[in-house]
Amino acid sequence: MAEKQVKVGLVGFGTVGCGVAKLILEDVDSIAAKTGLRLELACVVDTDTKSPRPVKLPNGILTNDINRLLNDDTIQIGVELVGGTDAAKQVQLKMLEAGKDVVTANKALLAEYGSELYKAAHKNNRCIAFEGSCAGGIPIISAIRTGLAANNITAMYGIVNGTCNHILSEMTSKDEDFAEALTQAQDKGYAEADPTLDISGEDSAHKLAILASIAFGYEIKLDDIFVEGIEAISKGDIRYGGEMGYILKLLAIGQKDKDNRVSLRVHPSFIARDNPLARVDGPFNAISVFGSAVGQVMYYGRGAGMMPTASAVVADIIDVALGNSATTFRHLHLKPRNEIESLIEKIGNCISRFYIRVMCKDQAGVVARWSKILGDHQISISGALQHEGIGPDNTVPVVIITHPTQQKNITAALEELEKLDVLSGKPVCIRIVDIPEDKD
Amino acid sequence: MAEKQVKVGLVGFGTVGCGVAKLILEDVDSIAAKTGLRLELACVVDTDTKSPRPVKLPNGILTNDINRLLNDDTIQIGVELVGGTDAAKQVQLKMLEAGKDVVTANKALLAEYGSELYKAAHKNNRCIAFEGSCAGGIPIISAIRTGLAANNITAMYGIVNGTCNHILSEMTSKDEDFAEALTQAQDKGYAEADPTLDISGEDSAHKLAILASIAFGYEIKLDDIFVEGIEAISKGDIRYGGEMGYILKLLAIGQKDKDNRVSLRVHPSFIARDNPLARVDGPFNAISVFGSAVGQVMYYGRGAGMMPTASAVVADIIDVALGNSATTFRHLHLKPRNEIESLIEKIGNCISRFYIRVMCKDQAGVVARWSKILGDHQISISGALQHEGIGPDNTVPVVIITHPTQQKNITAALEELEKLDVLSGKPVCIRIVDIPEDKD
Repeated sequence: MAEKQVKVGLVGFGTVGCGVAKLILEDVDSIAAKTGLRLELACVVDTDTKSPRPVKLPNGILTNDINRLLNDDTIQIGVELVGGTDAAKQVQLKMLEAGKDVVTANKALLAEYGSELYKAAHKNNRCIAFEGSCAGGIPIISAIRTGLAANNITAMYGIVNGTCNHILSEMTSKDEDFAEALTQAQDKGYAEADPTLDISGEDSAHKLAILASIAFGYEIKLDDIFVEGIEAISKGDIRYGGEMGYILKLLAIGQKDKDNRVSLRVHPSFIARDNPLARVDGPFNAISVFGSAVGQVMYYGRGAGMMPTASAVVADIIDVALGNSATTFRHLHLKPRNEIESLIEKIGNCISRFYIRVMCKDQAGVVARWSKILGDHQISISGALQHEGIGPDNTVPVVIITHPTQQKNITAALEELEKLDVLSGKPVCIRIVDIPEDKD
Repeated sequence: MAEKQVKVGLVGFGTVGCGVAKLILEDVDSIAAKTGLRLELACVVDTDTKSPRPVKLPNGILTNDINRLLNDDTIQIGVELVGGTDAAKQVQLKMLEAGKDVVTANKALLAEYGSELYKAAHKNNRCIAFEGSCAGGIPIISAIRTGLAANNITAMYGIVNGTCNHILSEMTSKDEDFAEALTQAQDKGYAEADPTLDISGEDSAHKLAILASIAFGYEIKLDDIFVEGIEAISKGDIRYGGEMGYILKLLAIGQKDKDNRVSLRVHPSFIARDNPLARVDGPFNAISVFGSAVGQVMYYGRGAGMMPTASAVVADIIDVALGNSATTFRHLHLKPRNEIESLIEKIGNCISRFYIRVMCKDQAGVVARWSKILGDHQISISGALQHEGIGPDNTVPVVIITHPTQQKNITAALEELEKLDVLSGKPVCIRIVDIPEDKD
């Protein structure tokens, strides 16, 4: 069968850009054999054309002039790997207007301006493919959009930030402090010098916004997502939770109830030790998706890195060139804000079980006083843990697990607990996430 | 956007057939909203038109006459869920000749006659979609063919038979005998009255044949696959293996080396306890795939059952109707037998570590005699386990773990061990599978 020549222009020649260039250049023959497509890297655009990179481009294709890409009508696909939101958005819009289909791995941009960009693509009769934007090498977007197309997706629980998962895994297995685990993650290259975007949970929220949009068909905004990071997690709480049968993970959670109300949140979560997600360690990502027909499915793999993300980007390039992406993208219609705004659940209404740790002063009647506050807020206790012995500051940690209760009850109770003179410091509160069991 | 009407004919109204009918009938609106396709179940063909089923069909569409499907030119897609090989093959061929695209979940048929059917489809300019044939609801076929298209797939390790996995999980967690666990699996509906196809490993081999064909691009025959079932597994060996850090799974393994030589096998396998596959319990399936760019990815979900498999079948119907399957199928070219026959590794050449258990009589010099046999065959010991105390028959179990060695050395050594008068009964030999670690 005759091969089809496909010219690709790449904007952004950083880590992932290098991986994409490498795959296109080195695997051109095997991709042609598998797909009938002969990919050609027509130009690579970057403001920095001087720094050495780990991939050697053919002479003359590296340029700092994006017009070479935009004005070349033989280039069918533009790959945006600039990162960030402002410049990248302009690059995508220009490429769409110039008649290129767009492939991107830019999660921050899609989380913030996805709806706007999708509309621009529809208007120009082009498509945007973004498999690389969530969970790197794991083909989760195509799984949700095509593999599970016959399902009503009711929930997803994802470990979608490898930095946080690495840090929490190390804190758990080595009983390390957060600061210690972060420094080591930075030394190993698993965390950035400025790790804020990862450890604050914001990066996970970007991915959740994209995944929830396509899974639930809603125009999700970042503001719809409650976000809490892992900065305040102590190794003691990981250890106490472990004694009670839980493993701590930073989860991105999207749930849709039978009335189509959607709850979206990113926060540290204690999950049962025997849940498959509890066993996802180190820099790996995994996403459990619940579908009405399929039950629970889970996808596991590397969530970041040069070649895993490049693998997803090149898969998208192939899918776009075959015409499959256009078909799928044509039917990406997100319910607009005015229809869904009332369907986004406020965090205060979320029902959850909670892990609460207080530091009790060594006095008689302490338990009675703080447990009364819980009772006053209709919070019922399902488990407790207190080791014998008093700490150096004459306090003792007491952990309780609550029955399911609304977040707002807990918030109100915590405010009162914080003021209680028989407790020392702020109480610690971590949500326990009961991932449904798909067993019979 | 105008909806596209898609008429579907279904052959085989058993468990999965009922699930597919149910999904098409009940989810027609949500599928239309997501995909722009309005699916219509035009006819359902089965020899049994009388028995009650858990789904109510529209009047007049159930028939025992396949010609109603074949002669109706408005039916674009034929779904074959007959099962078995002979009749089903004729059904698929007739549907292809009548100009229908084919969707099937028939693993036995594709494992045996896949190449022939794919050729018939190419000849008729039609496609065959078969996501439901392997691992039920897990979209593994599309993951390999599109999500990982930019990768050279070097290995896959799959738990692809839920019956065997359920039995082995129960034997492991409850210290049950095989016979006991099998009976309970039958009582719970996880095993057939005649469980041979599952417990012999044959069903896993069917799935491996299909998966390895598309992952490696070879025309694989069932005979290329070495198969050993779980019938002879004893709870004692699961326990001893557990003490040494291993979990027993029935794995379907496909590996390709740098010279494109392929090793294909299904057998009970001890795997390291901390491997993600070791934690796949009960009736679940999971497949780890290693790609040159992506590293390790794993897909987890229900491998069988009415709705999970129906979910995959309907996803295929959608993909065929959108035209995506045709594009992908057009490039499914398997290297023919004459090119690949010499690339199929014989089991004797396979290198593995081995778990060997012998029952030693309580005499002096026993260890020296049987360990000499291992040494004579260049088999080196890396670990051993012998508990104190003598069994009721005056023998004691001794377990050893070997360093990597060729299967043929082990086979020769086992033959000699079996004849040794200081050992009682046949030695037990189980392969230890070292799934590569994707860690840094």
